[in-house]
This record gives sequence, C-alpha cells and structure tokens, in this order.
Amino acid sequence: MAAAALGQIWARKLLPVPWLLCGPRRYASSSFKAADLQLEMTQKPRQKPGPNETLVFGKTFTDHMLMVEWAEQTGWSQPRIQPFQNLSLHPACCALHYSLQLFEGMKAFKGSDRQVRLFRPWLNMDRMLRSALRLCLPPSLGVTSASRALLYVILCPVGSYFPGGALSPVSLLADPAFIRAWVGGVGDCKLGGNYGPTVFVQREAKKKGCEQVLWLYGPDHQLTEVGTMNIFIYWTHEDGVLELVTPPLDGVILPGVVRQSLLDLARSWDEFRVVERNITMKELKRALQEGRVREVFGSGTACQVCPVHRVLYQGQDLHIPTMDNGPELILRFQKELKAIQYGAKAHEWALQV
Amino acid sequence: MAAAALGQIWARKLLPVPWLLCGPRRYASSSFKAADLQLEMTQKPRQKPGPNETLVFGKTFTDHMLMVEWAEQTGWSQPRIQPFQNLSLHPACCALHYSLQLFEGMKAFKGSDRQVRLFRPWLNMDRMLRSALRLCLPPSLGVTSASRALLYVILCPVGSYFPGGALSPVSLLADPAFIRAWVGGVGDCKLGGNYGPTVFVQREAKKKGCEQVLWLYGPDHQLTEVGTMNIFIYWTHEDGVLELVTPPLDGVILPGVVRQSLLDLARSWDEFRVVERNITMKELKRALQEGRVREVFGSGTACQVCPVHRVLYQGQDLHIPTMDNGPELILRFQKELKAIQYGAKAHEWALQV
Ligand SMILES: Cc1ncc(COP(=O)(O)O)c(C=O)c1O
Ligand SMILES: Cc1ncc(COP(=O)(O)O)c(C=O)c1O
Repeated sequence: MAAAALGQIWARKLLPVPWLLCGPRRYASSSFKAADLQLEMTQKPRQKPGPNETLVFGKTFTDHMLMVEWAEQTGWSQPRIQPFQNLSLHPACCALHYSLQLFEGMKAFKGSDRQVRLFRPWLNMDRMLRSALRLCLPPSLGVTSASRALLYVILCPVGSYFPGGALSPVSLLADPAFIRAWVGGVGDCKLGGNYGPTVFVQREAKKKGCEQVLWLYGPDHQLTEVGTMNIFIYWTHEDGVLELVTPPLDGVILPGVVRQSLLDLARSWDEFRVVERNITMKELKRALQEGRVREVFGSGTACQVCPVHRVLYQGQDLHIPTMDNGPELILRFQKELKAIQYGAKAHEWALQV
Repeated sequence: MAAAALGQIWARKLLPVPWLLCGPRRYASSSFKAADLQLEMTQKPRQKPGPNETLVFGKTFTDHMLMVEWAEQTGWSQPRIQPFQNLSLHPACCALHYSLQLFEGMKAFKGSDRQVRLFRPWLNMDRMLRSALRLCLPPSLGVTSASRALLYVILCPVGSYFPGGALSPVSLLADPAFIRAWVGGVGDCKLGGNYGPTVFVQREAKKKGCEQVLWLYGPDHQLTEVGTMNIFIYWTHEDGVLELVTPPLDGVILPGVVRQSLLDLARSWDEFRVVERNITMKELKRALQEGRVREVFGSGTACQVCPVHRVLYQGQDLHIPTMDNGPELILRFQKELKAIQYGAKAHEWALQV
C-alpha cells in the first residue's frame, strides 16, 4: 500500500516538471506508474510482531518489498511488489564500489481511526530526486553514468522513539576535528557516503560519555547538525529578541522534513522570531553564560524532536537547560506533529494511504 | 593465485601489529590464513580474451573470485576461491545505505619471463587497513558497528592505458565550486563515498570540453588531485630551484602508491629538489607566465603517469607545456616503473606471485 502510494507521489511530484521525465534515450521508458504495479505475494508470511514486542529499529521487516529496475537501454521496468528477498548484485557494481547509492527515510503513522498516514512525503520525494540528480542516477537529464539502477522500498514497524512518552534528553560531543560535510560537497543530499564515516565519530562520542555528535563546521565552529538530526536553538538572541534559530540550507545541512515543518509551524504561530542563520559555539557559550538559552534540540523523522541537555566542547561540559525549561517548545512541537500525523487534526501535510 | 598472495600479504602486514588482530570478541577468529584457502573451481570456464581484443576497463572478469566472510560472533571465515558470481545482499545492508564500503585497486604485471608481479602491494594493504579502521569495519580494535562484512577480490585483465605506447595528454577543468575532500573528512581513505559524487563533476568537465577534473581546495584554490590521480608539477620554483612538487598528505589527498613511488624514485636520483608542499592556482599561473613550468602530470595505478596539457580555470584556458618538454621526466618515470613491474630490473617493490 505504502509502495503504491509512493509510486503515485513520485509521478505527481514529477508531473509539473516534464523535462525531467524525457531524457534523450529513445527506447527508455522515462518513468513508471502505480497503475502498472505487479503483485507477487509471499507463500510464507511471517508472524506479525505482537503489540508489546520491543522493536529494534531496522531489524524487523515486512513480508514484501517494492522493486523497480532501471536500465539505460530499456528504462524503468514495471514496479513490482514481491516477497522480501536479498538483492543479487554484481560484485563490481558501482553502488558497492563508488557509492552510487542514496536513500530516503519516511514514517507511516497508524491513527486511532486505523488509517495510515504519511507525513509530507512530497518533501522526501523532492529530496530523493535531488540526491539522484547529484549522483547522475535516473531520473536524469541526459547521459547517465550508471547503466543500471534499482529503486526499492522496504518497510519495518517501529515503536515509539521515547517509550512511555517521556522525553529523554541527549548529550553531545562537539569535536571540531571531525567535519561531516562541507560547502562544495554533498552534505545536503541523502547519499550513503555521508553516513559511513560518521560511525567512527559516533564511537568517539560514546567513548567520551556522549550519546551523539554535534557536528561543527569552519574556523568559527558553527553548529550544523546533531547526529542525523537538524539542530534548533530557542533563545533570546544577542539583540534581546526571543527567537528560534536553525542553520540555513547553505550546502552542508541536510534539508530535513521535520526541520522544515518546525519552521513552518513556528512561523504560522507568529509568537517569536523564526530565523535561519549560522550559530557558532562562541555564541552558544555566551548565551549559556548569560542565561539566554531556553531549549536546544534536534529534529528528524526518527525522534521528531529530541532535547539536548549537555554539550562536551574543548574538554568543557556545557549544561543546556532544555529540560529545566519544560521543555515548553519541544512539547508543543511534539503535540502538534502528533496530532497531524495520527489524524487527530486534519492537515494538508498528512497523506492518507 | 593473486588472491592467495593477497591473503599472505595481509597477514604479513598485520603481523608486526598484533594488537590489531586481537579484538575483545572471544569467539571471533581474528584473522584468516592463506593456508586455509578453499578452492571451488568453475564448471563453466569462459573463453579467454584474445591477445588483440580491446579490453574495456571493468567489463571482463576472471572465472573466479576470492571471498572471505566476517561476522561479529564468529569472526573471519576461511578464505575461498569460488566461481565468479553475484553477491546476495540484504536490501537493508549498511554497505548499500550508509556506504560502509571501501575498495582497493592494484595491477598485476606479466613479464616477458611469463612471471606475474604485483607492485608494492603492501602499500595497498596498508591503505586498505586504514580505510577499514576509519569505517569501523574489521579488523578493528573493539566494538565494530557493522555486524557482518564481506571481503572479496575480483580480477579483470586490462590492456595498455596508452595503446601503442604514445602518451596522450589530458585537459582538466578546475572549478572551485566542487570540493572532492576536506580536512576533517575522509578524502585520505579509499571509501566508496568519495567517488560517487565525482561522477557529476566529471560530467561537468566533459560538458566544458575537458577530460578530467582538477580538484581545488580552500580559498587559495590549492591543486589537490586530478580525477582519481595524484598531481605532480615539475618546475623551477619561485626561489629559482628546479623541483618536483606534489601536495602533502594532510587529509585531503589519497596516498597513492604511484605517488609514493615517484617521490621515492626522484629522491633516490637526487638530481633536483623533491618536495611535498601545497600548490595554488596563483602560483601555477605565475609560473606559466614566467615560463618556469616543465611538466604537470597525474599519477595512479591505471595510467601510471599521465601528462596534462591544458587547464580550464575561471574561464581561461591555460596551456601547460608538458608535451613540449619531452615530456622528459614523465618518460623517465614510465620507463623506470615498467622495468620494475615487468621484471626487467630486479627490485624489492615487485612481488612475484
Ligand atoms: C544528516 C541528517 N540531518 C537531518 C536529518 C533529519 O531529516 P528528516 O527530518 O527529513 O528526517 C536526517 C535524517 O533524515 C539526516 O540524515
Ligand atoms: C582519489 C585518488 N587519488 C589518487 C589515486 C592514485 O592512487 P594509486 O597510485 O595508489 O593508484 C587514486 C587511485 O587509487 C584515487 O582514487
């Protein structure tokens, strides 16, 4: 179901830009349609996890997957829902050697009305398209460099990120020796290559007693992202104005769907300044000293909004008073998002599937 | 044969650093041995390419491949030579999503004595080990983040990079908008993620009539690498001294085996200054104007040494007089390397297999 919906969205999103769909390849089918979906159901359905089972992220998968193949000569194949199965890949394939790979992550929410909703999936499709273009993968404008590609969708059930609903804040290691992304690079695309090198740094953070990494950038140690989340600070700025600030999309920041949604929500409330601007460690330290910081948090599909209570920076433990301040804004964001995602509040951001 | 040799080299290289071999995993086999090699020969050998067949790089493979599996619980499996075959991978595997992948590239040379020689394979193994450590892949010092891994070796026959032996020089696009690697990143490791994003930039170069990319770095537009080659300049430096210069291994440069070999050879000759130092576009332009540049070239396993005759930089075509100058140094390097690789000159860099 989710897979079919994806096909529709993909097509819908691309429709206003028809030039993306018609590359110069004569015989290549330039896109695929949900209407052409082929179904092959499993003969061996697995037992569904029980309602009280703890689900480790990425360990339990559904019985089926969506698969669409692409080849330079023949274009996109018909989309196919098939039993969940291993991929058979040539050992020299460029996805495994040169990381011609990209991914997207999206959640589907099942409401108390038993309806399943996707949250702003157009934004994910948009980001996926940009990632694909950056790697010269299909859909493409002309000569593609990979001659074959696979698009596949796999699904796994996930539990609540904060079991019991109690927010647990995270601690961060801010070490300027490790740079996640850089201007002129591909940090704004969801490419596998951005993630592999972070495993090591995440381990460094753990060693130093921190849960995640606060990625810094530049000689002035700008705060860019938190682990695989965007970062937000809710504070009184140096100029005395209460504001919500997050770094701008200048090339090193992954354009998060939740990031965009928090900006959109806060702007619609019109209660404090909402701004996209670089933030440096020096500014943060000064604001902490002067008691101007209210909440610091990450945003991402996995946790939605995640409070930060400590930053380890240049050997110094900085206490962040997020939890001491409610956290008022975080809780409000969580509540608003939940209402939209689970259908309590009708909203154009929710796509019922 | 090459595969067995690799196993030996791997073990040899690791022997002096035994702490790398003994992680805390109790039941894990900490390494694998060439003596344990299992052989499964193909039942369907393919026809060997004829001597006059043109070989496209990476299109023709041997009938067999080496495979070694690793799992967190059980460690390394016995190495196995098996028929060349597709890999069967879980669709959620971290190699495909988060680019936990690395590779190495090495040539084997068949001499007129019909002996096959590897060229300084220890350097490749060394680089592979560092790449693996950076991704927390085995062998590792402690908790690894991937719970399973595959090490495999595939081989393909290649023809001469410069058919007929005539050097053909390349033109380069130097566009500071694209940055290959950055200090604090992983440009000094041979990780897939460093290569995927270059496909797009390579296409930009082609569009502008250039064959490869000259990767610049920093506000002063330092020359770092050429395509997937290291860069060398042979010139009279501003201080009047004749020198061979290449950028230092400061984190953005891939430590090339050929790069190291050219430095070693030139130092052993002791005829001109050999130096690892940053080079900027401003310096290059000035040296070109003042007629001080003799040869500019890339170095890498594929081509060995590759002359550069033109650089397109900020809309300006810079003629590089490499070919006008012989190219004396390039030809000398080519000759020396060939003598060692094909066995005409006995040398400790050649490993007979
Ligand atoms: C590096 C990075 N930043 C931020 C995010 C948050 O993005 P989103 O809100 O779309 O989940 C993600 C996750 O997708 C990410 O990988
Ligand atoms: C980015 C890059 N630079 C330089 C090189 C040259 O290295 P080597 O001389 O070991 O082939 C390579 C190829 O391995 C490379 O990928």
